[in-house]
Amino acid sequence: MAKPLNEKLRLKEYAEKFGEKLKKIKVCAFDIDGILTNGGITWDGENIGFNRTCHIHDGYGFKILRDAGILVGIISGGDSVGMRKRFIDTLKLDFVFLGNEDKRDAYKKILALGYTDEEILYMGDEFIDLPILKRVGFSATVPNASYEIQEAVDYITHRESGDACAREVMDMLRYAQDIKPVVLEF
Amino acid sequence: MAKPLNEKLRLKEYAEKFGEKLKKIKVCAFDIDGILTNGGITWDGENIGFNRTCHIHDGYGFKILRDAGILVGIISGGDSVGMRKRFIDTLKLDFVFLGNEDKRDAYKKILALGYTDEEILYMGDEFIDLPILKRVGFSATVPNASYEIQEAVDYITHRESGDACAREVMDMLRYAQDIKPVVLEF
Amino acid sequence: MAKPLNEKLRLKEYAEKFGEKLKKIKVCAFDIDGILTNGGITWDGENIGFNRTCHIHDGYGFKILRDAGILVGIISGGDSVGMRKRFIDTLKLDFVFLGNEDKRDAYKKILALGYTDEEILYMGDEFIDLPILKRVGFSATVPNASYEIQEAVDYITHRESGDACAREVMDMLRYAQDIKPVVLEF
Amino acid sequence: MAKPLNEKLRLKEYAEKFGEKLKKIKVCAFDIDGILTNGGITWDGENIGFNRTCHIHDGYGFKILRDAGILVGIISGGDSVGMRKRFIDTLKLDFVFLGNEDKRDAYKKILALGYTDEEILYMGDEFIDLPILKRVGFSATVPNASYEIQEAVDYITHRESGDACAREVMDMLRYAQDIKPVVLEF
Repeated sequence: MAKPLNEKLRLKEYAEKFGEKLKKIKVCAFDIDGILTNGGITWDGENIGFNRTCHIHDGYGFKILRDAGILVGIISGGDSVGMRKRFIDTLKLDFVFLGNEDKRDAYKKILALGYTDEEILYMGDEFIDLPILKRVGFSATVPNASYEIQEAVDYITHRESGDACAREVMDMLRYAQDIKPVVLEF
Repeated sequence: MAKPLNEKLRLKEYAEKFGEKLKKIKVCAFDIDGILTNGGITWDGENIGFNRTCHIHDGYGFKILRDAGILVGIISGGDSVGMRKRFIDTLKLDFVFLGNEDKRDAYKKILALGYTDEEILYMGDEFIDLPILKRVGFSATVPNASYEIQEAVDYITHRESGDACAREVMDMLRYAQDIKPVVLEF
Repeated sequence: MAKPLNEKLRLKEYAEKFGEKLKKIKVCAFDIDGILTNGGITWDGENIGFNRTCHIHDGYGFKILRDAGILVGIISGGDSVGMRKRFIDTLKLDFVFLGNEDKRDAYKKILALGYTDEEILYMGDEFIDLPILKRVGFSATVPNASYEIQEAVDYITHRESGDACAREVMDMLRYAQDIKPVVLEF
Repeated sequence: MAKPLNEKLRLKEYAEKFGEKLKKIKVCAFDIDGILTNGGITWDGENIGFNRTCHIHDGYGFKILRDAGILVGIISGGDSVGMRKRFIDTLKLDFVFLGNEDKRDAYKKILALGYTDEEILYMGDEFIDLPILKRVGFSATVPNASYEIQEAVDYITHRESGDACAREVMDMLRYAQDIKPVVLEF
């Protein structure tokens, strides 16, 4: 069998390093642009508007966490047809907040469900994400976020924006909480 | 003449290292998302649905292997117009299984054609690929697959998802079986 | 809290190194293709024409600089529906010059507003950008610009074309002028 | 002024190393998929068909070489609306051969114009390019071409497919022939 590449091995180390924080997590919230996408936006005509590309690994990561009883969703300042198709219609996430750059409202609604700060994980990459990044139990960002964002978070992913960087964090959480996806017998 | 870059040289070494397994291969099956694509999916309107981008080198690799008598095809949990246009209408692959996340059925149909596990090569990157990855004669995945997938396969490609990582495996198979594509005299 | 990655730390060093020049900047102008995009252009049908993809971080960078009283805009030889939607309709930049490969006219119009060369920052990547790159107070380009362009500018970004390389320069300017984006209390 | 990055400096060295061959070049021909594109193809509906993305730097490179009297064009096995819009309608290249995987015909038509093998530069990345790559005065390919292609060419670019790798070769040719693009006085 193949020897897993180094980054993967380190991911288990990080899961251990942040174990105390990660074990408390019950909610995972993600920004879209620059986290679930590579930051790219493309005008696709009046019917679609500005469009983005998501990564299939992040989508499957959502599914794994949900199956394990973790609440998963989106808090994005942007909004578009494609994102609704992906996160509401297809992935059917537990919560999808779109189109408000003041993300405090969405966060308060999550708290109102009965969760505490330390039970929430958030991943974002911009100044509008800072209020939440500073409050949550575990915060993460990407390597190309501005200095002030990188300085404020618990963890900076090795994968770049849109290259399944969210899945990197989800996998780390999975290792920390010992979540094992169902694998069919064959 | 140029001195080929290092990765290419190593590819011949790998072909030798895995020679015993690769020489038995008669069927090559690939997952789509994250293998034949970079994992990106984009909403492209009601007529096209979620869309993906494939790599031309993988397409030509299919052709080379088929010309050498190897059965080539797809086992994908996803399904879309673009993928049908590419793999059925254009490349006319020997088998194209789409839209079933339980990939055991497709695999059984290949076995039913008279092939054995050790004659099949499979490349996939997600937990739903594990049942097949664990059974086939030669298994491969990509550098950004989750730890459990990397740990289960024979070979992890050097190329990333969608960057012709399938062709890397096809070329390795080609070297192991001494398959030489036709090059026109001039 | 996470230790910011190295490039970010160096960015503050560069801001210091170029402090004298950057402190005078009152106008920031950017080329589109190869700077605000990764250089890619895609035919998208008669209604959209040739299309490009922009980066969300550059868009937010424009907003931060404008809030700090800096004039921001575009001087591009290209022109397309998507670029108008992005830079005029959505981001509402202070100036957007499109469709003229002779960029001297646009530059003169900026000077006519009462600004001097040393108060203008420009980022471009092609020979048609050289006349302006050589005149402005601070000039920048990307790692894959031709030798003659790289040789002519003050700064070559670490990020590649379209990967928020403009934001890298904007952040550097921000550090040099001590511009702090508003972060909501929470 | 900025110190140009290392690759650029080496490009001038390569121009010198291959000077004898490059000085004779009067015609530059390029493959599309995997050279002028990153190898990606995307189904874009019946009106557009399979679509590709080109790089703006390669486009400007064509212009520079044409202004210097060099014949520039395409020999591609593929064909699509977008490529015709880009290479015929927009860039108006000297020759555009599309849709024939046997590239010998196109090459013979170039010879019929009165050029000799050693006056032609060709860049391609697949087995169907080998007949021409082996004949021309200067041949180039990309880092992810198969071993046999890399082994057959004079030069392997540092830039990847679609990331203006053609411009890298054009710039090298430019340095070898001392071609200086017009830069407007200002």
